[in-house]
Amino acid sequence: MGGDRGPAAVVAGIEESASKNPDIHFIVHGDEEQLTRMIGRRKALAGRCVIRHAERVVTMHEKPSHVMRNGEGTSMWGAIESVRNKEATVAVSCGNTGALMALSMIRLRKIPGVNRPAIACLWPSRNKGGFNVMLDVGADIKADAEDLLQYAMMGASYARNGLKLVRPRVGLLNVGTEEHKGHAELKVAHELIGASAEAGSFDYVGFVEGSDLPSDRVDVIVTDGFTGNIALKTGEGTAKLIGDFMKEAFAATPLSRVAALLALTSLRRLQKRIDPRRVNGGVFLGLNGTVVKSHGSADATGIAAAIKLAFQLAQSGFQERLAARVAAVGGAHQDAPADGENNGRAE
Amino acid sequence: MGGDRGPAAVVAGIEESASKNPDIHFIVHGDEEQLTRMIGRRKALAGRCVIRHAERVVTMHEKPSHVMRNGEGTSMWGAIESVRNKEATVAVSCGNTGALMALSMIRLRKIPGVNRPAIACLWPSRNKGGFNVMLDVGADIKADAEDLLQYAMMGASYARNGLKLVRPRVGLLNVGTEEHKGHAELKVAHELIGASAEAGSFDYVGFVEGSDLPSDRVDVIVTDGFTGNIALKTGEGTAKLIGDFMKEAFAATPLSRVAALLALTSLRRLQKRIDPRRVNGGVFLGLNGTVVKSHGSADATGIAAAIKLAFQLAQSGFQERLAARVAAVGGAHQDAPADGENNGRAE
Repeated sequence: MGGDRGPAAVVAGIEESASKNPDIHFIVHGDEEQLTRMIGRRKALAGRCVIRHAERVVTMHEKPSHVMRNGEGTSMWGAIESVRNKEATVAVSCGNTGALMALSMIRLRKIPGVNRPAIACLWPSRNKGGFNVMLDVGADIKADAEDLLQYAMMGASYARNGLKLVRPRVGLLNVGTEEHKGHAELKVAHELIGASAEAGSFDYVGFVEGSDLPSDRVDVIVTDGFTGNIALKTGEGTAKLIGDFMKEAFAATPLSRVAALLALTSLRRLQKRIDPRRVNGGVFLGLNGTVVKSHGSADATGIAAAIKLAFQLAQSGFQERLAARVAAVGGAHQDAPADGENNGRAE
Repeated sequence: MGGDRGPAAVVAGIEESASKNPDIHFIVHGDEEQLTRMIGRRKALAGRCVIRHAERVVTMHEKPSHVMRNGEGTSMWGAIESVRNKEATVAVSCGNTGALMALSMIRLRKIPGVNRPAIACLWPSRNKGGFNVMLDVGADIKADAEDLLQYAMMGASYARNGLKLVRPRVGLLNVGTEEHKGHAELKVAHELIGASAEAGSFDYVGFVEGSDLPSDRVDVIVTDGFTGNIALKTGEGTAKLIGDFMKEAFAATPLSRVAALLALTSLRRLQKRIDPRRVNGGVFLGLNGTVVKSHGSADATGIAAAIKLAFQLAQSGFQERLAARVAAVGGAHQDAPADGENNGRAE
């Protein structure tokens, strides 16, 4: 039933996606009458969608705790249920993030060995592929050292399957790259992640700073959900500010408007590299089933991007690989010598 | 003796500043021979500088704790000493941030009523003046609710004196604007700051998100130094990425290079609004004396901007006003009814 733009944007996104990829099929959850009408109008969707009626919708401002108790019968619940009963490989939603995570947690359950699930996002970067992965960007506001280690493993697994990087480079977000800086918890995580790099098939580059988020010295940036969410929204806000200032600069005088016309191709090239719609899709990691959260304000292009990401992950068998990896590294980590480690929870 | 670029950049910045403002005089700390030669070459500096010899320099990678014990005799120590003994109104440094804060703390001491000093930075924004204030961006990695309240007061005072806003709007950085989100500590701070708005002569707008940092709904953004530092560097990194992508887009083809030439005025207009050199200068708040930290990589223009900021604050009598405000609000806050408050430290 969509996010800020309602179901019309979702149906338009589904169509964009369906017309590009003949192998995708959809189970669409929501108001049957409304969806039947919207989907019926779009030819590319003929025979590609199954509609599942849901009486109710989770609104954008409902508290996750309330939705956990009263979510049954909503379109969001239905979408997650499709993944739970293996009808669907991945669920995609533009709805309330907190509610989606809460319902995903109680219905799909965490995979063995994962304490806190995380949301991973893609971040435009100087890397060859054009993106870095950052997690957690808001599944939970806290993370202890063991959680950060699991984020490192899950993020590396996502980078292998979603970005096709054989040996991702993992960094831990901190206020300085020197080892004496940052919270005590981060220093413990630093040791733990370093010690698990071999078992997790990633390279650990150590502490990274906010300025490294778009850099090419790292592929996966690990942080707690509070810091990650602030960083994500700060980056988005900064990009939007610069975009708006650029528009104003080019609209300022008649001459600058002519210049803008001539520079159109260049500006479009730029736009394409930093368009937030192209990186739409936060992936929930650590659950028995993959859930992709699209931006609430996503339009058809944004939703199609989230679906494309979901499809790639489904095709790569990501879910099974991630679970296997967590089990393997968890074992290796438990068996490893305990120097510099702190298995106790430090909250 | 400068940051990454050494004393030559500082002397060039001093000259730029001296030639624009006949009322500024400088006490320059460092290697006498080197500085005498550099300053002697620049005519605009004739009769404007007093050179104070310092045997040693604090390097960029020295640990703050080491500098605290062994800093005497360095140029950084000398600069802070000039403020301490009232020879100078403000100290400006491009050096090691942690060491500068540590030395400022032990030599200038905290003003009564302030528990943790903070570093405030300016952030390009949609506001009429073009900037917002954010603090703390890295004086300390922790802050409890009482500290955040003090940051709100100090930030409001800075905005009044540095940005000439009579009644600044203060926001508290969080992962969501709904009141049920975020750490427990933040909820306590939310109540405290709201209750002190009247006494502090600011408007409290409540929780703000990362995307609000450049927005026009707030003037002062309050956060702990860990989160603030990550947000600051994320914003800078994002701006730099977009700037580099823009250059690449305009350099891609012969036609785009022609377009860039025609768009030059527009691009310069844009550049001016987001140039990080124009917002150079983190101000240390909460000490008996004002210290301005310039970016380590600042060039002459950046250093001149930091000096200009320092001069503005000096002229406004900021130091005395801030101390008076903290004392007044501290008193009002202590006397206020205790509902929703938590005066105990929650670490």
